[in-house]
Amino acid sequence: MEKLAENFSFSGMTNREHAIFEVGIKLAALFHQLIGAPIKNDDEVMKKIADGLKESISCQPYVKRVDCEIKKMKEGMTQTYTKQHEFDYTYIQGRNLVAEVEVQYEDWIAIGKVEWISDLNYPLMYVKEVKQV
Amino acid sequence: MEKLAENFSFSGMTNREHAIFEVGIKLAALFHQLIGAPIKNDDEVMKKIADGLKESISCQPYVKRVDCEIKKMKEGMTQTYTKQHEFDYTYIQGRNLVAEVEVQYEDWIAIGKVEWISDLNYPLMYVKEVKQV
Amino acid sequence: MEKLAENFSFSGMTNREHAIFEVGIKLAALFHQLIGAPIKNDDEVMKKIADGLKESISCQPYVKRVDCEIKKMKEGMTQTYTKQHEFDYTYIQGRNLVAEVEVQYEDWIAIGKVEWISDLNYPLMYVKEVKQV
Amino acid sequence: MEKLAENFSFSGMTNREHAIFEVGIKLAALFHQLIGAPIKNDDEVMKKIADGLKESISCQPYVKRVDCEIKKMKEGMTQTYTKQHEFDYTYIQGRNLVAEVEVQYEDWIAIGKVEWISDLNYPLMYVKEVKQV
Repeated sequence: MEKLAENFSFSGMTNREHAIFEVGIKLAALFHQLIGAPIKNDDEVMKKIADGLKESISCQPYVKRVDCEIKKMKEGMTQTYTKQHEFDYTYIQGRNLVAEVEVQYEDWIAIGKVEWISDLNYPLMYVKEVKQV
Repeated sequence: MEKLAENFSFSGMTNREHAIFEVGIKLAALFHQLIGAPIKNDDEVMKKIADGLKESISCQPYVKRVDCEIKKMKEGMTQTYTKQHEFDYTYIQGRNLVAEVEVQYEDWIAIGKVEWISDLNYPLMYVKEVKQV
Repeated sequence: MEKLAENFSFSGMTNREHAIFEVGIKLAALFHQLIGAPIKNDDEVMKKIADGLKESISCQPYVKRVDCEIKKMKEGMTQTYTKQHEFDYTYIQGRNLVAEVEVQYEDWIAIGKVEWISDLNYPLMYVKEVKQV
Repeated sequence: MEKLAENFSFSGMTNREHAIFEVGIKLAALFHQLIGAPIKNDDEVMKKIADGLKESISCQPYVKRVDCEIKKMKEGMTQTYTKQHEFDYTYIQGRNLVAEVEVQYEDWIAIGKVEWISDLNYPLMYVKEVKQV
């Protein structure tokens, strides 16, 4: 099946490039799947949501490892996001997510990361490391 | 805060109707948040993903209880969805999801359910019960 | 088919209550489908994205009308969100969305709205009007 | 800003590899944003939804071109998905989506595609072409 998939791909792609392509897919899948999920500032709730996502992304092709942490929300000073009242909770946004994904394609490993970069005001996805095994 | 929210609402709404409205919101939030998440036919993986969603939806206003089960995927006979090869996994679809949400608005409880109805070929969301406490 | 769907529903539900339930579903579907979509502060881009969502939600059962507007993003003062550089764009968030949905269930119409309420720091979904036709 | 983003990235990445990474991100963003959107078998509806998504993904960094087509749904023989009754519509799934994204990173262009591959029973994302300009 992996062979069949290869037939569609640009023939000039190296294994290293395949690994880099795949890690891009996984970072974006993780981000767009999680954004918008209701959340509150409770460690156990955050952990369970992150664990669910981690298991989900781990199902995708070539994934070796997923680390995912949802960070506490601090913006919106009128709220604690701890359900002091019914509307005191929030949705997962780019600024609350830090995740790392490792994929292996043949003999190449690519590690990608998504995290909020304040100076960019942006959840940056980037390749952290590429190595041969 | 709940008071403030009420000011926006149609004044003719009863508490019972508020509960019914809120349970509609929760069922659709749950459905649209989960659809498209990668999954495989592994009980532990499915449970962790369902648990994450359950915690997430439980953060929303008026929610008392969320039960959520992801059912094994059987369609696609060329696949087992157990990662026999890299592409042997799938995405959560309407037919794999059964969930029940209970909300309480003042003295009224509404219980809503979403499940796949084969005769409709459709993931039906409906109110299962409404009761006063 | 509508008949078949009714069989699942709590028998005590009035048509008015069905309309209220359905409008809750539509507001949440609209919200969770749109959140996280890339966007920039360009009127034509915003209109096309809103139009696509409007068409999509209009496909759902009992929907008579969908109005949807994406409002310009002003937060994040280091950014204009007009692609002055590659990262100068953003994702649709609760605070950028105003939408109204009208559903009809038999002889009852329910109009629901979702909009950002600053005092709640929250994208509130509420029933704006319920009427018999 | 693009400079700042580069600082986070693995220093060994070539421009060609950056382009390949970015096109992976865009394909997955497009896929996960669209999956689950309500749809019916009406050319105009499908075109408007596809156009909205196209505009949205075009906002992302390095994107030069997005082509996106939603294909008619044929499975579920009890349904025409043309609103013959209230439940006769469906949700966008992997098998209904064909999209192509072109990104440019410095002097390198990568073209990626996502389409349903029956033999894989899977919406395959792959790099179709990589070229220097």
